[in-house]
Amino acid sequence: MSPPEVITDPAKLRQRISAARPAGKRVALVPTMGALHAGHVSLVEAARRDCGVVITSIFVNPTQFAPGEDYERYPRNLEGDCALLGPAGCSIVFAPSVETMYPAGSETSIDVGSVARPLEGESRPTHFAGVATVVMKLFQLAPADAAYFGRKDYQQTLVVERMVRDLNVPIELAVCPIVREPDGLAMSSRNAYLSPEERCRALAIHASLRLAEQLVGRGERDAQQIREAALALLAESDITPEYVAIVREGTLEPLEVVEGPAVIAIAARVGKTRLIDNLILQ
Amino acid sequence: MSPPEVITDPAKLRQRISAARPAGKRVALVPTMGALHAGHVSLVEAARRDCGVVITSIFVNPTQFAPGEDYERYPRNLEGDCALLGPAGCSIVFAPSVETMYPAGSETSIDVGSVARPLEGESRPTHFAGVATVVMKLFQLAPADAAYFGRKDYQQTLVVERMVRDLNVPIELAVCPIVREPDGLAMSSRNAYLSPEERCRALAIHASLRLAEQLVGRGERDAQQIREAALALLAESDITPEYVAIVREGTLEPLEVVEGPAVIAIAARVGKTRLIDNLILQ
Repeated sequence: MSPPEVITDPAKLRQRISAARPAGKRVALVPTMGALHAGHVSLVEAARRDCGVVITSIFVNPTQFAPGEDYERYPRNLEGDCALLGPAGCSIVFAPSVETMYPAGSETSIDVGSVARPLEGESRPTHFAGVATVVMKLFQLAPADAAYFGRKDYQQTLVVERMVRDLNVPIELAVCPIVREPDGLAMSSRNAYLSPEERCRALAIHASLRLAEQLVGRGERDAQQIREAALALLAESDITPEYVAIVREGTLEPLEVVEGPAVIAIAARVGKTRLIDNLILQ
Repeated sequence: MSPPEVITDPAKLRQRISAARPAGKRVALVPTMGALHAGHVSLVEAARRDCGVVITSIFVNPTQFAPGEDYERYPRNLEGDCALLGPAGCSIVFAPSVETMYPAGSETSIDVGSVARPLEGESRPTHFAGVATVVMKLFQLAPADAAYFGRKDYQQTLVVERMVRDLNVPIELAVCPIVREPDGLAMSSRNAYLSPEERCRALAIHASLRLAEQLVGRGERDAQQIREAALALLAESDITPEYVAIVREGTLEPLEVVEGPAVIAIAARVGKTRLIDNLILQ
């Protein structure tokens, strides 16, 4: 397949989308921060199955990083990204500059309320306002019929769903499964930061999620028991997580008893690298 | 002209807008809270001059009222509103219910930053988050080419402009002049609250604005002098304003010296009725 067209100008992007519509083509948007991996590729492939035009946005959004986080060193590789995107079925890459996205005087921000507060919201208090705001901007700049997000950023998918519902944004959301390395590590652009030794220890995160799943499968319903088992397994790999949370699917309400749809979510630093992962428990 | 079609269902509204587009018609949105007067009619007429389809939304938005404000008693008169709208050139009234606009679980809100803080933002701290959020929802529900707002709510026009720019909403904004009663009182749905005696005293608001304009016309540049003259005139009618502010046009930065584009804005209670008005000084 031919490489995607890289567009940096919003007006040009709008033209491309307007031109696709009369032909009856559905337009998909896959918002990313670049440094693409097989997880992103799976989103583009899903989008291409449903839609005639797939736009992938590549923008490392400064407002979702707090001072001291890895905004500056976040991996950037537009050429490599495009090489992955063409074969996956993406025909347009929207790669705006920071100045295009946040011209001087930009101040507006979006707060989606309670679903943004726990878990990542506690560890990164300004993160989801940055995410919601940039996603809303992208939805306005690239008025697609559908947008595709990865389940690895589970709370983010809930934040975007809340915003789209509350602000009546006319876009369908698709949430695609986590893509993992053969050994279970969830695909993440930040995996590139891991040393070989850290890469090995990081496997304990997925192993803990699987252990929790097995315990639930065997009938354990006490969330505290499950959490303690997960924490013990993480400790064996010298990992002290920021959180191991067992929550109600959709609302993130903490569960004491695993009843109904539930999710276990973990955030942990391995060395200096902060990783997140999650698993549907039932 | 025939009376407008009243639509309460967002999906039906979208169908009407989608149907207008292939015919090459520009679509206008005039967001209102109903209880329409000649000011609103002027917005609809301006919209009709520019656009083939004019939609007027009528929704008394609870989230822009604070507890204790006049949400419950705010005048509502859909039948009378429609009688004004047809002849003015509006063909569709979008009049959603509160439950349609804010289904259970709605939590998202939009903060546009510094332009929402002074003046009305100080007197009504939650007001502009409510305004920005409902306007964004209306812009998504009724994806028009242009939206029309009245200059009487001057700070509101700046809030909406900031939001549209910052969130890249693909809509043109038009701000139309204040429409006044023959004696100068700015048209407002809240004028209906005034007793005859209050109605008479309320004229001092516009008179104070005009006095300020005259002083500037005569060369006065000291904002404090101008404010004091306006305050003295208000006091003659027993009006103690919430604010009399002389600010830079566009930014609302308070001015000590009237230089460059400037606006004088007043908020005052006359009896229990809170009125606002403003005038471009130069």
